[in-house]
Amino acid sequence: MSFTLTHRDGAARRGLLTTAHGTIETPVFMPVGTQGVVKAVTPRDLMEVGASIILGNTYHLHLRPGDELIRRRGGLHRFIGWERPILTDSGGYQVFSLADRRKLTEEGVEFQSHLDGSRHVLTPESAVDIQLNLGSDIAMVLDECPALPAPHDALDRSVDLTARWARRCRDRFVERRPHSDTGSGQLQFGIIQGGSELDLREKSAELTLAIGFEGYAIGGLSVGEAADTMYKVIEGTTPLLPADQPRYLMGVGTPLDLIEAVARGVDMFDCVMPTRNARNGRLFTSEGAINIKNARYAEDDGPVDAACGCYTCRTFSRAYLRHLFLAGEMTGGTLNTLHNLFFYLDTMRRVREAIAFGTFEKFRVDFHRTFSARPLTA
Amino acid sequence: MSFTLTHRDGAARRGLLTTAHGTIETPVFMPVGTQGVVKAVTPRDLMEVGASIILGNTYHLHLRPGDELIRRRGGLHRFIGWERPILTDSGGYQVFSLADRRKLTEEGVEFQSHLDGSRHVLTPESAVDIQLNLGSDIAMVLDECPALPAPHDALDRSVDLTARWARRCRDRFVERRPHSDTGSGQLQFGIIQGGSELDLREKSAELTLAIGFEGYAIGGLSVGEAADTMYKVIEGTTPLLPADQPRYLMGVGTPLDLIEAVARGVDMFDCVMPTRNARNGRLFTSEGAINIKNARYAEDDGPVDAACGCYTCRTFSRAYLRHLFLAGEMTGGTLNTLHNLFFYLDTMRRVREAIAFGTFEKFRVDFHRTFSARPLTA
Repeated sequence: MSFTLTHRDGAARRGLLTTAHGTIETPVFMPVGTQGVVKAVTPRDLMEVGASIILGNTYHLHLRPGDELIRRRGGLHRFIGWERPILTDSGGYQVFSLADRRKLTEEGVEFQSHLDGSRHVLTPESAVDIQLNLGSDIAMVLDECPALPAPHDALDRSVDLTARWARRCRDRFVERRPHSDTGSGQLQFGIIQGGSELDLREKSAELTLAIGFEGYAIGGLSVGEAADTMYKVIEGTTPLLPADQPRYLMGVGTPLDLIEAVARGVDMFDCVMPTRNARNGRLFTSEGAINIKNARYAEDDGPVDAACGCYTCRTFSRAYLRHLFLAGEMTGGTLNTLHNLFFYLDTMRRVREAIAFGTFEKFRVDFHRTFSARPLTA
Repeated sequence: MSFTLTHRDGAARRGLLTTAHGTIETPVFMPVGTQGVVKAVTPRDLMEVGASIILGNTYHLHLRPGDELIRRRGGLHRFIGWERPILTDSGGYQVFSLADRRKLTEEGVEFQSHLDGSRHVLTPESAVDIQLNLGSDIAMVLDECPALPAPHDALDRSVDLTARWARRCRDRFVERRPHSDTGSGQLQFGIIQGGSELDLREKSAELTLAIGFEGYAIGGLSVGEAADTMYKVIEGTTPLLPADQPRYLMGVGTPLDLIEAVARGVDMFDCVMPTRNARNGRLFTSEGAINIKNARYAEDDGPVDAACGCYTCRTFSRAYLRHLFLAGEMTGGTLNTLHNLFFYLDTMRRVREAIAFGTFEKFRVDFHRTFSARPLTA
């Protein structure tokens, strides 16, 4: 692995992250491909909208079709027809949010599958093994991610447990990676926890950096706290992380969140928002979000966003997308997803450009002003 | 309009049909885009799999979003982003199969929308007007399509009614087409009815040809009768039709049906089978049909059809398509649809090639033998 910072503009950074399946330009947004596919689109669509790396969910893929089956297919890239980099999470977040009858112990977490009720155990070691089977380019350690707000002492215990699990993950990774047929080129990122308590973020960073990983994630945000709280935690955490390694803010967020996090030194992002919102008819534009269901678009011959160059905006009107949505046509979900992903990825392209030109602060102010014209509503 | 036969091989014909939105090579299969979209795919996907003309359903588009709304958008082509030819049916078939509380009179048919129960009347005149609003390249007359089997005298009365409606459709078309902003280049096809009674097919052809249309369809087949019955009716009907005009077999059928109908002189086809089956996991291959759900494909790394050149077969395994199907991922529906449409359209391309080379009979025999290896089951 190599991570090279090519430009800095204030705390914002532009860089190149090289993985086994290619080099990614950062800051980067990673579309979420939960079950081995980014919902409603094909890999060639994804490449066309500019995705350079996608995320796969270990919890889902472990349960169906199974990581061993995927390993026998030659790994996740080959199985799903995606030749560019893939990052996998550890499965922990979904166990805590989706699975039934969870039981957390020092050893790991027991749970029942949300699909068929079957019993499973996820440990730091099995989270590593599963991700090596999947053969992702970047694997995440298993962490505990408590809901916010939480008392300080509960968060403190969680930070300690996450650090002990991180140690076990790293040991397993160092032992097993050389012998993996699918994951021998994998990188492993540690995760900083600590909720909204900056002293715990500091402790978590210290413990995690002492183990040593190829990159570091900020976890446990975007779980219900206010945006300002999140921005303060990011601002307090990025200076604790090595300047020459990639920084990944997990599960975040709105376009404004991404820009605010870049302004605080974050390099990587993932979020279901562009894809999930698309399927619900909520589309991002340079002037804010619109809901394509709205009757006002029934005879609107304009594109979703006149400033957008995506296939959907080049070809179809708001009136047509509204018709597809109301008629329940899945092609509507596809066209909306193409647009929202293009919007996110093109925004990140413009972020990288602004950083290179030293104009990121102006970009940030301009983006805020135009994007806030139509506030994103629930 | 011009229709030019370029090759004949037995009763099979190869030709060029020129419409307002371009020239179609026949024999041709038309994918069905019921609600202004071929389900699960985009127009660029459709072009890539080789679709040269698609079908739109007048009944659905009249009810939602409305043909007047589509006319105000500049017509169906512009509204749906499809620049190649479109054929629309008259709406009659869906009124008889989908709508509630139908009441058939000499004037037309009253019905309630299956969407919201609202009352509508479809007459020969309104069927013409709606299709002129849509601006399709080829419009169909309103006909009555009785279910088979039916008594001879009922079929006879239906043929008479269909002929009277055809006369009214032609009169309206001749009167209104010159003044239509969306449909001024439209062609109109008559429909031969008569069920499985060859004397009634003869009578229907005589009455319909006496009115005079740009092309003729064989309607009222593939409504429950045996394949042999259908083939006999086709064989008995095509010789009654002008050799120098296009012949369209409505709503048919399986790949073997298409080839058998081409062998009997048919030029055009439409059917939901490739698209609907795709979404249900039933895929066509050169060696017959497979059901991708089947457990035998769980670890099958081969493509759906090793002989197929479509994006799906070039990129994905049966194991992956099975996973997408079981996981309920709509991208599975898209990839399956791309494959099935490619199979149909490529089969028709090979049919045209064989006719040009004078080898259609050999193609037909070979296709039967290999395709029947895995019979299509329900």
